[in-house]
Amino acid sequence: MAFLNDHYFKLKAGYLFPEIARRVKAFTEANPAAAARLIRCGIGDVTEPLPPAVITALHRAVDEMAIRATFKGYGPEQGYDWLRAAIAQNDYRAHGLDVADDEVFVSDGSKCDCGNILDILGHQNRLAISDPVYPVYVDTNVMAGHTGESDPNGAYDGVVYLPCNAENGFVPTPPTEAVDLIYLCSPNNPTGAAATRAQLEAWVKYALAHGSIILFDAAYEAYITEAGIPHSIYEIPGARECAIEFRSFSKSGGFTGTRCAFTVVPKSLQARTSTGEKKPLHPLWLRRMTTKFNGVSYIVQRAAEALYSPEGKDQVRALVEQYLGNAQILIAGAKAAGWTVFGGVNAPYIWVQTPAGVTSWQAFDRILNDVNVVITPGSGFGSKGEGYFRVSAFNSRANADEVARRLPALQW
Amino acid sequence: MAFLNDHYFKLKAGYLFPEIARRVKAFTEANPAAAARLIRCGIGDVTEPLPPAVITALHRAVDEMAIRATFKGYGPEQGYDWLRAAIAQNDYRAHGLDVADDEVFVSDGSKCDCGNILDILGHQNRLAISDPVYPVYVDTNVMAGHTGESDPNGAYDGVVYLPCNAENGFVPTPPTEAVDLIYLCSPNNPTGAAATRAQLEAWVKYALAHGSIILFDAAYEAYITEAGIPHSIYEIPGARECAIEFRSFSKSGGFTGTRCAFTVVPKSLQARTSTGEKKPLHPLWLRRMTTKFNGVSYIVQRAAEALYSPEGKDQVRALVEQYLGNAQILIAGAKAAGWTVFGGVNAPYIWVQTPAGVTSWQAFDRILNDVNVVITPGSGFGSKGEGYFRVSAFNSRANADEVARRLPALQW
Repeated sequence: MAFLNDHYFKLKAGYLFPEIARRVKAFTEANPAAAARLIRCGIGDVTEPLPPAVITALHRAVDEMAIRATFKGYGPEQGYDWLRAAIAQNDYRAHGLDVADDEVFVSDGSKCDCGNILDILGHQNRLAISDPVYPVYVDTNVMAGHTGESDPNGAYDGVVYLPCNAENGFVPTPPTEAVDLIYLCSPNNPTGAAATRAQLEAWVKYALAHGSIILFDAAYEAYITEAGIPHSIYEIPGARECAIEFRSFSKSGGFTGTRCAFTVVPKSLQARTSTGEKKPLHPLWLRRMTTKFNGVSYIVQRAAEALYSPEGKDQVRALVEQYLGNAQILIAGAKAAGWTVFGGVNAPYIWVQTPAGVTSWQAFDRILNDVNVVITPGSGFGSKGEGYFRVSAFNSRANADEVARRLPALQW
Repeated sequence: MAFLNDHYFKLKAGYLFPEIARRVKAFTEANPAAAARLIRCGIGDVTEPLPPAVITALHRAVDEMAIRATFKGYGPEQGYDWLRAAIAQNDYRAHGLDVADDEVFVSDGSKCDCGNILDILGHQNRLAISDPVYPVYVDTNVMAGHTGESDPNGAYDGVVYLPCNAENGFVPTPPTEAVDLIYLCSPNNPTGAAATRAQLEAWVKYALAHGSIILFDAAYEAYITEAGIPHSIYEIPGARECAIEFRSFSKSGGFTGTRCAFTVVPKSLQARTSTGEKKPLHPLWLRRMTTKFNGVSYIVQRAAEALYSPEGKDQVRALVEQYLGNAQILIAGAKAAGWTVFGGVNAPYIWVQTPAGVTSWQAFDRILNDVNVVITPGSGFGSKGEGYFRVSAFNSRANADEVARRLPALQW
């Protein structure tokens, strides 16, 4: 009789967003008048339409698909050459970073890539994961059988958790013990913190010393505004020997519903076989993508290419500035309410400390009930997120203004 | 130091299509005049443009993405309700088959799904795979560590190979031993054979008796022309307790470059945990998709929906008839050449027996050199494919006519 993968039963229920939805539903049903005033700053999803350059490129690509001479069937699984070249040139080589076109793998999402990368890595690896953290890093490892059971706090046996708090600026420091795989997300979801050059240098030094691999999630790179904050792990010497970088068009071009992302696997990155021989990962990822994936939709790849045109770049900048402007407004509102606020400068999220003695979920309920705003409780991202909540700046300017006006009215 | 997944090193090089490309390149460089006459009937990729109903739907969806009020961000990972409903209604319930909307999972490709399904299945399962076979079924199992090493014929240790030959109509018969996972592809790539109701009944009976799961790949379902050939495994009583079905819009709507497919996981399908407890697979696949996937592009889902409109259905039928008409022409040409021909009636592939003593690759070279046509050597699909070659009917009518004219000129 067939077996299922019972590592899945170690997963805790997908608790956070379903629970938010449940509480919002209960509130709006009980308070129909307040429901109309509800503003959602919970989920990290863009709200503004696709840039005009993308719309033009999409229509043009659709027209190509309507004519036999320009119709496109199967494309290269790893992405069309012209898109890989545009990415490598604009996101890396134009900034002096050594990334070849064929080290860029185009995919349908960073979430997919962050999970799928485990396909080419061994089951023996010891993991280090930030706390709080984007849950996908943890859950995909649980599903792959790389962890033990979870404890009552939700921490999985076999994972090294790296606490992120106000003391370390919400950027984890390398552990004293040896770990093999390290998930770093900068600018960070959920805390909005961005790692400094010195912090990333410490991680690359650690990884090179231990032969570890850094899985660097830079999905929010476009939001970096401060000079000196690295936009890519490859700005750090030695990173080509120890890091894979994930990026996405979801939050730069507003592609959350359009789906395109990419992953950089340097040819100089190696790991060991079970017998200790060192081998490059690049051919394994190429084999994984060509065997288990059929490439991103042609029309979507043309849409992503348009983000690198001069107009596309201007339009992305305007989108990002709109959301970062919201973040500034939300920060001002939260400070006017007397709160301690982090993030929002190099990221579209602000990370707010709850008043003493107030839990993340208590803050959620109070904010929902009193000012009709939905936020995300920090404890949903890990035990070290308790006592915080995340406010997303993905919204219209009018909504951001309104939320900032309402927050100071809160009474704890 | 980090470990890689060294099961990948068991994979033989992706030999078939690169080797075809190498030989075609050598030939065209040596024979520039003949190169202009070259007709490709090798790879199974569609050639005709997207149906007009799809083009209209794509343009409309792109326009929605340009306006804030109709813009779509993240959609449900498992697909929009309206597409799941259109699929369940049109492909199943309209034919009297019991498939609920939420048993349909929309994805970006059947190749992806056929590989990803292993995520939710245990490593202990014993596999049965046809020979010849679509290589993805084998390779994804090798990569997941479900096989041993390969022998000189390319057969992997730990896999039960099910020979397909003229005697069994190229449809495998259940083995005498117990297996847990069975890959069936009907209509078949590469042989073009379609399983009869009696053949599928035998498989469902076997699976129910052994607690096995049938992974039923029906990507070519639209090509079935003969009455009585099942279009879905769920036409067989009991299949909801033992089968997962994969379907695709690639070969029906011409979506190979547009990317949309779906998988049906019945809620009544169970497998056992490592301690022997029976549990449904549906919640595991839902968890897999929501954790490791972010849904298909909104505009592509609208394109797929358009295939179920009255005009869309007519246009799909016309596309399929064009390719099946090509198949008939190719069959006639191959028979005029004196060959023994299979397939091409319920599938866009014809499967040709080489003359006695001629290997698949010898046939490839002779056909390339003498009549400047590219086919796919059967031995590339498995040892039992030796002595055959596949001719794809995905082509223009003019090319199909021309290939049929040329074939009888071959001298062996």
